[in-house]
Amino acid sequence: MLHFACCINAMRNKKTKIMIKITFPDQSVKEFAKGTTPLQIAESISPRLAQDVLAASINGQEWDLSRPINEDAAIKLFKWDDPEGKHAFWHSSAHLLAEALQELYPGIKFGIGPAIENGFYYDVDPGDTPIKEGDFAAIETKMAELASKKEAIVRHDISKADALKMFGDRNEEYKVELISELEDGTISTYTQGNFTDLCRGPHLPNTAPIKAVKITSLAGAYWRGDEKRHQLTRIYGISFPKKKMLDEYLALMEEAKKRDHRKIGKELELFTFSPAVGQGLPLWLPKGALLRDRLENFLRRIQKRFGYQQVITPHIGNKLLYVTSGHYAKYGKDSFQPIHTPEEGEEFLLKPMNCPHHCEIYKAFPRSYKELPLRFAEFGTVYRYEQSGELHGLTRVRGFTQDDAHIFCRPDQLKEEFLKVMDIIFIIFKALDFKNFEAQISLRDPNNREKYIGSDENWEKAERAIVEACEEKGLNARVELGEAAFYGPKLDFMVKDAIGRRWQLGTIQVDYNLPERFELEYTGSDNQKHRPVMIHRAPFGSMERFVAVLIEHTAGKFPLWLTPEQVVVMPISEKYNDYAHEVAAQLEMQDIRTTVDDRNEKIGRKIRDNELKRIPYLLIVGEKEEQNKEVSVRKQGEGDKGSMKITTFAELLTEEVERMITQW
Amino acid sequence: MLHFACCINAMRNKKTKIMIKITFPDQSVKEFAKGTTPLQIAESISPRLAQDVLAASINGQEWDLSRPINEDAAIKLFKWDDPEGKHAFWHSSAHLLAEALQELYPGIKFGIGPAIENGFYYDVDPGDTPIKEGDFAAIETKMAELASKKEAIVRHDISKADALKMFGDRNEEYKVELISELEDGTISTYTQGNFTDLCRGPHLPNTAPIKAVKITSLAGAYWRGDEKRHQLTRIYGISFPKKKMLDEYLALMEEAKKRDHRKIGKELELFTFSPAVGQGLPLWLPKGALLRDRLENFLRRIQKRFGYQQVITPHIGNKLLYVTSGHYAKYGKDSFQPIHTPEEGEEFLLKPMNCPHHCEIYKAFPRSYKELPLRFAEFGTVYRYEQSGELHGLTRVRGFTQDDAHIFCRPDQLKEEFLKVMDIIFIIFKALDFKNFEAQISLRDPNNREKYIGSDENWEKAERAIVEACEEKGLNARVELGEAAFYGPKLDFMVKDAIGRRWQLGTIQVDYNLPERFELEYTGSDNQKHRPVMIHRAPFGSMERFVAVLIEHTAGKFPLWLTPEQVVVMPISEKYNDYAHEVAAQLEMQDIRTTVDDRNEKIGRKIRDNELKRIPYLLIVGEKEEQNKEVSVRKQGEGDKGSMKITTFAELLTEEVERMITQW
Repeated sequence: MLHFACCINAMRNKKTKIMIKITFPDQSVKEFAKGTTPLQIAESISPRLAQDVLAASINGQEWDLSRPINEDAAIKLFKWDDPEGKHAFWHSSAHLLAEALQELYPGIKFGIGPAIENGFYYDVDPGDTPIKEGDFAAIETKMAELASKKEAIVRHDISKADALKMFGDRNEEYKVELISELEDGTISTYTQGNFTDLCRGPHLPNTAPIKAVKITSLAGAYWRGDEKRHQLTRIYGISFPKKKMLDEYLALMEEAKKRDHRKIGKELELFTFSPAVGQGLPLWLPKGALLRDRLENFLRRIQKRFGYQQVITPHIGNKLLYVTSGHYAKYGKDSFQPIHTPEEGEEFLLKPMNCPHHCEIYKAFPRSYKELPLRFAEFGTVYRYEQSGELHGLTRVRGFTQDDAHIFCRPDQLKEEFLKVMDIIFIIFKALDFKNFEAQISLRDPNNREKYIGSDENWEKAERAIVEACEEKGLNARVELGEAAFYGPKLDFMVKDAIGRRWQLGTIQVDYNLPERFELEYTGSDNQKHRPVMIHRAPFGSMERFVAVLIEHTAGKFPLWLTPEQVVVMPISEKYNDYAHEVAAQLEMQDIRTTVDDRNEKIGRKIRDNELKRIPYLLIVGEKEEQNKEVSVRKQGEGDKGSMKITTFAELLTEEVERMITQW
Repeated sequence: MLHFACCINAMRNKKTKIMIKITFPDQSVKEFAKGTTPLQIAESISPRLAQDVLAASINGQEWDLSRPINEDAAIKLFKWDDPEGKHAFWHSSAHLLAEALQELYPGIKFGIGPAIENGFYYDVDPGDTPIKEGDFAAIETKMAELASKKEAIVRHDISKADALKMFGDRNEEYKVELISELEDGTISTYTQGNFTDLCRGPHLPNTAPIKAVKITSLAGAYWRGDEKRHQLTRIYGISFPKKKMLDEYLALMEEAKKRDHRKIGKELELFTFSPAVGQGLPLWLPKGALLRDRLENFLRRIQKRFGYQQVITPHIGNKLLYVTSGHYAKYGKDSFQPIHTPEEGEEFLLKPMNCPHHCEIYKAFPRSYKELPLRFAEFGTVYRYEQSGELHGLTRVRGFTQDDAHIFCRPDQLKEEFLKVMDIIFIIFKALDFKNFEAQISLRDPNNREKYIGSDENWEKAERAIVEACEEKGLNARVELGEAAFYGPKLDFMVKDAIGRRWQLGTIQVDYNLPERFELEYTGSDNQKHRPVMIHRAPFGSMERFVAVLIEHTAGKFPLWLTPEQVVVMPISEKYNDYAHEVAAQLEMQDIRTTVDDRNEKIGRKIRDNELKRIPYLLIVGEKEEQNKEVSVRKQGEGDKGSMKITTFAELLTEEVERMITQW
């Protein structure tokens, strides 16, 4: 409708110099001549902005900076820090890679070359000259050379027939296949120097901003993901507008590799996978299970204080339960398939979430307004099918344990409950040293209210509750309109780990849908039946993912209260093995997790090995220590702390742990 | 072979008075004239035995007391306390019921009438005169009348043709159907008074021992369990050799009904079932989950002290894992069927046991003899399909959590490990007040050694280890030859509950099979590869079943340390609600599980209601208590304990709990 109105407007002003109205994100409006480009608009604001801007959107549609605007429109300008900015930058870098490859490998044919989460790739068919890792430097040099030419990247809209002819003439069989499947009509191409690609855009105006490029890896990739078709070479790369940013990125990658939770998980014997059990199904080894148990108990204690009640429900449910919840219709086909029984007429599903079970517990009794809120918590293991190619360590698995809880409350209790859940999340962030975090509030699209379930009044109440709760907590949350699920608004937390990566941890989600579908009720003070609101929340998200994040955040140096092995006692020679075990027994009696390293090795070697195992406290015992009933203490990261009585050490350690877990 | 030798023997002695050799269970041998009956043999030992004996077995075959023995044979005589004795008694009682019904309901037709675990039933087609509960007394009277006639119960062996004619002449269509399906040859019938039944026996010699009968209930039962066929009336009853025994039984039933864990579980809000989730899949409500958590933590603490390591494994596994373990071949068809995935080529099973997963954890590293024993423990939830008709509360479910552990040890460590597991079981029995228990050792059948897996040497070692371990613990265990599983010997514990019922709790099972199938290994001190032995053990069995037994044992009055609600604070009027909550908060801070009953009810009513909820401590607070910061204490089963300071009460309670859980 808006589109149509603008056209009328444009026609009306035909004879005079035609002006269009541009609306900015802050709702301010400026007039520009018809045909003005986003880059020109940026220049009109400031030269600095013109330099930084990388892409735009016009009325919500992605738009080249150099593409004219011919009608009244809402504009957004994107810089490097915006995902849309990075996307255009990397997409143009993919074209730059292709241009370089075309020069270096004449006759090379191109598949597709998109921007991805971290960089870009291009799938190519290099013919008889395979591309090798040794070629990366030459490719990077050629890309830098082409970029420095400041080649304009120009969009052309051509007919399907012309596109087929253009790519056909060049024997680009993969592109021809793609074009032939497009609908008839205009097709866009982008050209820079001698290279033209079939592409929807948007792109940078020219190649100059691409100041630093790294080709990172090679992989085989079947054309269109079909293993029956030709295998192409996928070339991955990443690029930046500044050399320094690339250096920082590479250093970060190096550090991330060292912190990879799969590597550390193996070194510290926390978890393992067995092909015999199945991919993506973690087996928690004793130390990992202990770590997880500590985390669960920590949260249990907090939740108890906050009035939660633990429940336990089965890992399967009748298929009809998920038909009722709506999950079967939505995910059934892509999930673990139903479990049949020898008797007829029954089908079960592995539970993909705990909420339907908790709704059934809610329904086990008639409920009164006086009982609400009811907060049912469960460390509930759920199973969700993931394709084998998508699995990754503990962060992407097929079975995981949610630190789940569902709060059933009255609409007027929403804000209070949000505040309480936020308190729990903050306690966890503090205890686990996540100092940096951001929050995002996802609300309704105000222009599309009909697509949401639940009354207008309740939505407004809930949205206001979330916003006010964030304000009361002094939380500078980003508000995103239209990002709410159809069944309720939510609040998400993103933490930054020790090396600056962001992880989503902790979602608080309002739900008007399940109470409706499960026909949940309570009797109000008016003696009438009312529908409760549900809040889903999981501060850790899942035990698996959280432990993975924690490993990568701490590089395996877990806080003392959490680490599976707190103390290792190391006799300087076999003569003191008995004393070492005596010390360990004494500490174990006080619930200090202690082992003895009585291997027949030099003490230097023992220290090194146990430091590698990230043990917080190493106790060295020899003749002097045995005589005085003492231990010689080495603390992780601090070194030698001198000798002290066993009892003194135990007291110090116990106090340190107590301080950590009771600070809330 | 023995049978054949006897025949030769019998033929050889044809001309003289033929004697046969009877071997008794203690291996002593006595001679009797050929044709002697078991009853006569009993009489030859003592008149008392002849009075008590109810049935016999001859060479392992069930045998009427009045049936002649014609060859050398091993004899066993069964009395009331033997299952075989009860079985014959109740089987004859079923015939007695039929005889009574035949007199009371002329034209009645008979289906089948077996002995069952507790009593007997007969399926009958009463024609136009339905049998009702009001008729029970008349039936009992008639049965007593017939029993007192001391009618002989006589066995006849007749041809199939004669049997068909006999029952056909009497229009016994159900019996005719059964006979027509038998193989040609001799068919046995039993007759008493005017009643003759098709029956294999064995039976009592006459009806006189049946001194007390109770008809307990009626049910519909389709002929041959086929719902398309005629519905018969199933009449249940139970009988005893003494009136006093029936009275005791009825009193026990009355008490058992009061203690039914399904009833108490509901009253105390411990667990529930939801048809929407599925039959046999318990939902643990907050109080039940708390109780279970306390039990689990109790065992965790003990296990930690005994060197166990907790692990966590998924609830599904690749189907091939169970093909390897052998479970799929054995149980696959009758179990929950495989879970298919959207991707091809993968099939998973709900895990019916945790052992294959623990074997995979064992295999995660090369193992040395120095590391053994390794003791992996998991509260592992498993799923086993049970027919819906078999399900019963928490004792027979489709999903349950085993307090499972697998000990991987060297053969020379078996005895030590058995002793330790027995220690754990005794700690549990003591803490939960199971004072009476029995143990059974199941060993190989010495005459069939070829049917067991594992070397002779290892079997002997293991069997000796179990027997010696029991001796060292002063345990008077029953030894059963031939009761071992094919993969190893075992030790079982049976506890007697507060009203004398027996429950199997705690099995320690040696396993040579899985280490073989999973090719488990360790490097010995000789640097060679060896196979470890596995021990399966679960002191509780499953959390579900154990909680059920505990409810029925305690009638819901759980020990203080375990009970979900330890204290209820009851203000005598609303004026003292604030103080009541203050008391509760103070107790909660010390981890005393406390609630407040601030309903607007009279104090008498509150006391009654909370006593019904089996709360160990009720605290009454009013003006005097508030002024003095005191509470007035009522203890379960002991009544008024006077007033005391809140802190004093908290200390007393905490000490009482500590004493209970640290006595080991």
